[in-house]
Formats: sequence, C-alpha cells, structure tokens
Amino acid sequence: MAKQDDLFKNVVSHAKEYGFIFPSSEVYDGLSAVYDYAQNGVELKKNIREYWWAAMVQLHDNIVGLDAAILMHPTTWKASGHVDAFNDPLIDNKDSKKRYRADVLIEDYCEKLQQKANKEIEKAKARFGDAFDEQTFITTNARVVEYLEKKKAILQRMAKSLDAGELDDVKALIEELEIADPDTGSKNWTEVRQFNLMFGTKLGASAENAMDLYLRPETAQGIFVNFLNVQKSGRMKIPFGIAQTGKAFRNEIVARQFIFRMREFEQMEMQFFVKPGDEMKWYEYWKETRLNWHLSLGLGREKYRFHDHEKLAHYANAAADIEFEFPFGFKELEGIHSRTDFDLKAHEQYSGRKMQYFDAEENKNYTPYVVETSVGLDRMFLAIFATALTEETLEDGSTRTVLRLPSVLAPTKVAVLPLVKKDGLPELAKSICDDLRWETTVAYDEKDAVGRRYRRQDALGTPFCVTVDHQSLEDQTVTIRHRDSMQQERVKIVDLAGIIHSATSMKQWLKQCF
Amino acid sequence: MAKQDDLFKNVVSHAKEYGFIFPSSEVYDGLSAVYDYAQNGVELKKNIREYWWAAMVQLHDNIVGLDAAILMHPTTWKASGHVDAFNDPLIDNKDSKKRYRADVLIEDYCEKLQQKANKEIEKAKARFGDAFDEQTFITTNARVVEYLEKKKAILQRMAKSLDAGELDDVKALIEELEIADPDTGSKNWTEVRQFNLMFGTKLGASAENAMDLYLRPETAQGIFVNFLNVQKSGRMKIPFGIAQTGKAFRNEIVARQFIFRMREFEQMEMQFFVKPGDEMKWYEYWKETRLNWHLSLGLGREKYRFHDHEKLAHYANAAADIEFEFPFGFKELEGIHSRTDFDLKAHEQYSGRKMQYFDAEENKNYTPYVVETSVGLDRMFLAIFATALTEETLEDGSTRTVLRLPSVLAPTKVAVLPLVKKDGLPELAKSICDDLRWETTVAYDEKDAVGRRYRRQDALGTPFCVTVDHQSLEDQTVTIRHRDSMQQERVKIVDLAGIIHSATSMKQWLKQCF
Repeated sequence: MAKQDDLFKNVVSHAKEYGFIFPSSEVYDGLSAVYDYAQNGVELKKNIREYWWAAMVQLHDNIVGLDAAILMHPTTWKASGHVDAFNDPLIDNKDSKKRYRADVLIEDYCEKLQQKANKEIEKAKARFGDAFDEQTFITTNARVVEYLEKKKAILQRMAKSLDAGELDDVKALIEELEIADPDTGSKNWTEVRQFNLMFGTKLGASAENAMDLYLRPETAQGIFVNFLNVQKSGRMKIPFGIAQTGKAFRNEIVARQFIFRMREFEQMEMQFFVKPGDEMKWYEYWKETRLNWHLSLGLGREKYRFHDHEKLAHYANAAADIEFEFPFGFKELEGIHSRTDFDLKAHEQYSGRKMQYFDAEENKNYTPYVVETSVGLDRMFLAIFATALTEETLEDGSTRTVLRLPSVLAPTKVAVLPLVKKDGLPELAKSICDDLRWETTVAYDEKDAVGRRYRRQDALGTPFCVTVDHQSLEDQTVTIRHRDSMQQERVKIVDLAGIIHSATSMKQWLKQCF
Repeated sequence: MAKQDDLFKNVVSHAKEYGFIFPSSEVYDGLSAVYDYAQNGVELKKNIREYWWAAMVQLHDNIVGLDAAILMHPTTWKASGHVDAFNDPLIDNKDSKKRYRADVLIEDYCEKLQQKANKEIEKAKARFGDAFDEQTFITTNARVVEYLEKKKAILQRMAKSLDAGELDDVKALIEELEIADPDTGSKNWTEVRQFNLMFGTKLGASAENAMDLYLRPETAQGIFVNFLNVQKSGRMKIPFGIAQTGKAFRNEIVARQFIFRMREFEQMEMQFFVKPGDEMKWYEYWKETRLNWHLSLGLGREKYRFHDHEKLAHYANAAADIEFEFPFGFKELEGIHSRTDFDLKAHEQYSGRKMQYFDAEENKNYTPYVVETSVGLDRMFLAIFATALTEETLEDGSTRTVLRLPSVLAPTKVAVLPLVKKDGLPELAKSICDDLRWETTVAYDEKDAVGRRYRRQDALGTPFCVTVDHQSLEDQTVTIRHRDSMQQERVKIVDLAGIIHSATSMKQWLKQCF
C-alpha cells in the first residue's frame, strides 16, 4: 500500500505543479474538500465533458440534453426522499470534540480485520510458494476464518441497524468493539445521530418570509421534473433519454481522497425513459454501452470491473457500478441504475400533476420506467489523470515523467518549439502557432534547451511537439515528436494540421465505442 | 411600448413551446427568477459559451482558462467588499406585508415623470410635424423642464443618501413623494434597511461548529485568489489573462425580465493582468475587441452602444458597458472595467500573503492592475434569441415564424426530411442522418407535410433542411433549403457535410472579429 500512497501523493502534487488542480481558496488556507480546476485542468475537464456529451447526445438520435438550475423548488427534495433519508450517521467524541461518521469508524475497524487476514495469507504464500492455494487457505485457516467471519458479522449488524434506524445499536457496536477516536484514543462517545447531507440556503429577504432551499445533491431530479415539458416540446417517443451535466453539492463530513469525494462536484447523468417491463433490456444495454465508452479511452480493460449491487436503494430494481482501479483501489466510477417509476410517481404525488406518457402504438397512458447512467466528472478526471501519470526509465538510465493522457482529451494538442532563439526560428514557429490556433489548442515555448522543453510538454500530456530548425527555413518542413514513443519524423508544415487533427478528433476516438 | 411588451411575451412563450427555456420546477409552480435550459436551449447556451471560449482562450496565446469552485473561503467575500457592501435597500409595507426595493420604488416614480415629459413631447411632435426641434423643446417647455428637473433632483438625492448610508433620508424621500404600495395603494411604510444579496449556507455537521459560506455572487474572485498559482504554474508573463465561465448567485428581491436578471445565472469573465500605468491602453483594447466579438454574430451594429460609467464602483478607475437593445430597451450586456489593483491588494491584506508579480524586464515586483471583461451568458442568450425571433409575411400573404439564429450557434444545424414516408425515402434519409451525425448536430423528421416540417425547423432556428425525394434514390442528390432565404438548391449527398461545415464553423465566424 505504501507504493500506492506514494503514487497518489505524486498525483496530487503533479496536478498542482503543472496547473491542473489547485486547492480552493488556497490563499486563505483552502476550503476542505473543494478544489479549483486550473488552466490545464479546465481544458481536460471540458474535453471529458464534451466527449461524454458527443457520445450521449450528439450520436444518439433519441437522447436530448438539458441544463436545469442548481436551485429547485424545495418540494422536489421532499418527493425524492432526500429531505427525510439523505443522511449520514454521525458521532462525536466528547473529549476531542471531533466528529466522525459512525459507519466509517466501524468500516475502518473491519478494514483492520481484513488487513490481519491478508497478513496471514501473505505469510502462508511466502511459506508455500507455488503450491499455495489461496481459496482453500482462506476457508480453512482458523485465524483467517475468524477475522473474516467477525468482519462479516459486524458489517451485517451495522447495515441492519442503520436500515432500521436503530442508532442506539450502532453506538453499542462502537462501544463493544472498543473503537477509539483515531486522533486521541478516547472512547468517550456521544449518541449517534442522523445528519442531512444537503446544503441549505434561504431565498428571499428576511428570516420571516424566506423560503428554505437546498443546493441540489444530484442532477437527476432536474430531469424528472422536466420530463413532460421535454417530451412534449421535443415530441419525443419512448424510449428516449435526457442527458445533463452540472454541479451538485453534498455536505460530506468525511471528505477525502482528493477530487474523488468533494463537497461540490459535477455529474454527467442520463435518464432513459422506457416502457414498463422493458427496463431490464435497457439496463443491460446501457451497462454494455457505457463500459464501451470508457474502454474507448484506451486506459486498459483491466482497470474496469462491474460491481452488481446486492442491496438496492429504495427506488431501484437493479443497479451496478462500473468500478475503476484508482490509486487507492477499485472504486465506483459510474452507476447504472434501473430506477423503476419511483421518481416520476413521487413527483406526481407531491405535485398533484400527472406525469404520464401517451403511447400511440399501444394506445394507452403509462408512467415510464427509468434507467439511469450517472458518472462523476471529477472521478473521470481523477481516473484518467492518475492512470496517465507515469515515470519511465529511459535507455540512458534517466527517468522521465510523462502524462499519457488520451490525446483526444489532452489540454494542449501541440507545442511549437523553435530549436534556438535566433535566426528567424522563433518568428517561423510563431507563425505556425498562429495558423494552428484556428484548428486546435497550441502552446509556444522557446525557453531552455529543447530536451527540457520536451520533458515539460510530456509532463503536461501534450501529445505532439513540433520543432522548427534551420532546415525548416529552407524547405518548410519541421520535426514532429510523439509524446509516448518519443519518435520524431520530418513532415511538411502544411500537413501539420491534418496530422494532429486525425490523431485527436473526437470522431475517430468515439468510433471505437459505436 | 405595447408592441415591445407583445414581442417580449412572444419570446417567453416561444422559448417554452420550442424547448429552449422552461421555468424551473414548473410542476411545483416554479421557483421565482430561476429557469432551466431545455433541450434546444442547452445547445444554444453551450454554443455561445464555446464561441466565447474559443475567441478568448483558444485564439489568444496569453489567456488561459480556469474553473474555480462556487464555494469559496468566506474571507474572500470580506476582502472583496461583498460582506459589507453588497446590499439592496429594502422597505416593507406594513399593511400589505409586501417588500420592495426602496431605490426601485423611487426609480419607478421617476420613470413616471419621464413618461409625462415624453407625452408632452409626443403631443408637440404631432402638432409641429417636420418643424419640430426636440432638443429645443425639451430645454424650453415649462412642463417638460419641470418634470425632468424634478426627476434629476430626486435621483441625485437618492444616490447621495444611499452612498452616505443615510437610509432615513431614503424613507423620507418616499414619504415626501407620497409613493404608495403599487399593489394596494397603502403609504404605511417601515424603515428602510440594507439587505445583503449573497445566498448563505453552512459547511459542516452542526450549527455549533459550522462555517458560514456564501454562494459566490460573481466569478471574478475565483480568478483573483488563484492569480499567483496560475501565473507560476503556467509561467505566464504580464500582460496575460485568466478566463472563466461559471454560475453565480444573487438573492435578488425584485427579479424580473425573464432570464435577464436571475437569482442563479452564468458569467463569462476574463481578468487581464497588466503593468500599472498600462491599464487605460488595455481598457480601450478590450472595449474594442469585445465589441468586435459581439458584432461578429451579425445581429446588427445598431443593436449595440457603449455606455461609459460616470459614477465608478469603489474598485474601478474606468468602466463602460456594452449595451444591447433588448425588447425592453437598451440594457447592459457586458461590462469592461479597469479594476486597478483593488482586488489583489485586498486579498493580500486579508490573507497576509504577497500577490505580486516579478517583472523580469523591469527587474522589480509589483501588484498588477486588472482590466475585466464580464458578460452574462444568459443575457447573451436572451439578446440573440429575442433578436432572432421574427414574424415574416410571405409573398402569398401567409406568415412564418423564423428564428434567425446565427448559424454557428444554432442548436441543430441540419434537419433531414424524407419527402414521403414510403418508397425507401425514410431509409435513405436516416442513413444520411447517421453519416452527418458524426460531423454536426442533426434532426430527422418524417411527420406531417414537408412544408409544415420546414416551418417547424424555421421556428427552431435550424439553418438547413435537407429533403430526400425520389430523384435522390436515382442520382444521390438532395435539395438543401436555406432557413433565411427559403431558397433551395440541389446538391450531391456527399457534398452535404462540407456545405454545412463551412457555413457553421466557429473558425469562419470568428475570423470576422480578428
């Protein structure tokens, strides 16, 4: 794990040093779990968003977009269940005055049991070598069995208590396990109580006549309340989808892992409205389609896996995550959920307005079922950035840091470098920049030796470097260097735009997933 | 004015009927002054944003982007002056319990004086005909002079009282003018008091240990607090700019005029950092550059005018608006402000950290001066949409509604229509769609007579309609119809992508402003 921790630290520091991500309000010592996208980060983020939008909206004739506001009528969140049930169980330590999520304290305890089991497994592996049969060992070794069964029993009891709202038993569990404040070791705990994760605010001029609003904790509800307006004004026929990207906010108590879990984050969601009974077909369709979209980025099939939910949310009849191998292990990247007609029915009930679709083929009205695909834009960013960041040992023994971003997503597609800062090379390089700027994103760099400039562009993820030398003045050719292979080739200046375009166009990349 | 009111009503209803803008949370009777962008609105808005970004970031080698979070450390807003001075003066009517902006009540009173003067002018104009000299009349007619001087005196007194924080005198003015509650006629007013326009929220788990945050009321401060991080990690040299688009929030008491003044809105801002003393040169440069950007959209030079601020904000040493002729008159569309070093100095003071730039050429440190360009994305949308919406009387006496959007911004670039729904025409039309979808945004429509389908696309602003007929099956040609001229021409199917691309590419349009 130490190596993974180091990798993750590298990710965070590289993101800051090279202008991808800064802590928010850093001059004021930051705002916990909120980050700003810097000059290169904003471009990478925009490109991911656009890559998603092109695949979901532009290339699907039955999906349209939407951009609903962050502020919504508060009854929306009553209907969706967020006012009553979007809670975290919190506990305070009376001595340290520190606050924790009770479930996370218990999960951390269980993680230690798992680590103890892993240690036994590693020891046995070292002892038995090739003859070691891990599966048999796990089910027969007394200590390992004890650790894992204890872990399972604890997690089951916690889940049952939380589901039933028996917070006393969660507290009792913490006391039985003798869990201490990780910072101070104190076991002097308060009761466990539920805390709503929505940020509240007030609309209007004074406390007396203000309306209590929430910052939306998810973008999905903006789609549901607009379902009929979109269907009617767009004359959409089922099955059809509504796609949206936008900010959502959650007042997380324990926010960690950099941009993986932020208080302010961006979702890319699509709600697909289908005929009741067809939902499982579409659920499978979207699981496959969305995985293919991820695979088209070329980060490697082995980085992804499906995780089917055993325990379903109150609104779902099937749900799976596409998990990605982050530096801290496999974690949810995207969720595909068969949400039934829960949301539309709830909004019907709270608004008193019908939210039904008239199916002309079947000649009847019904409330559609919904299949949702929901991916975190910031998580996509982290997945791509962390996977792309590599340290290579070159043939001469030196190392280079290279950010192997999919070239379609790279913030800058090409850097133009005059070999030396004289003899008219900067002028020619700048005029090449001025032409290319109309076609793609360009950087110009004339400072330091050219090898050092290559390294800088490698670290920024720029897929191409174009070097202008004395031969360029004579025959209007330049060298183009490929980031990943470091190979160089001599090409005509007039061919540059075409070469870069064909390697970085969204069309070419997306064709791999259709 | 009645005609303009009608036009504005048309804008609002067309925006809803054709899927551009819906009231937020409409199933719950809406949320005042908050709107959602519908399936066509989201594309138009995205295109405006992208057109701005391409012109500001991609095509300027010394401007980079940023995407700072909405939530910032609260000291940011202390330093910027928003906590202390971002207020509206409010007054309540004791009988009706209605709340008003005191300054708006007084301004409305003055507007009535202006209308009385206008009425005299109109009467005289009708009497004297061509011989009428309006300027002379305004300065000599006793009644008109009285109305206009009274108006001027009232506005001056109000401005002075508000500046000095003498809210008692604002109240006194309302009473002296005998201003009544517009709804009920009651003159029974409370005191005037200041109300801060920022939305507040709380970060953290409980009232005791929560941190008071604000939803940012402007995006500019996210740029200022990141100034040094961007400059250093991006190795930027002055003069350089940082550009950003994003949401901002203001708890407006009197929000009106559709999407012109919303509680949740989006800004497109660029802060340009310059050497102290150079700011007026850059201020003039950006006034001209930004106007040219607007003009490149082709809405007409006469729709724009500059308005130089006589009274400057506390942070500015020069400021101008680019005003646009909305359906309700000339109003601010974009602001260009020379903000001096006010913001950077304030953040230095509140954070205790230096925010200076080392100028290698001058071999000295200084705090840069800032020239800002700030345009409301929603206002841009309204300006373009309202201007584009036209009713035409055709040669045969019928009328058509056509949304003459700049084709570069149109949500759908081309609709493909089979002439009839048989003989293989739908299949060919769909296969054309499938090809074009990789290049541009496409709609397919086979319902109703083709003339009606043309009208539908006219109302959506689609610049091109492609019609597939029986000849298409034989010679692989189609007709392409131009939205504005309604002219049709026969072209080869293989040429379609090129024709559409050259008429709608951002590059072609932007070349007009560079």
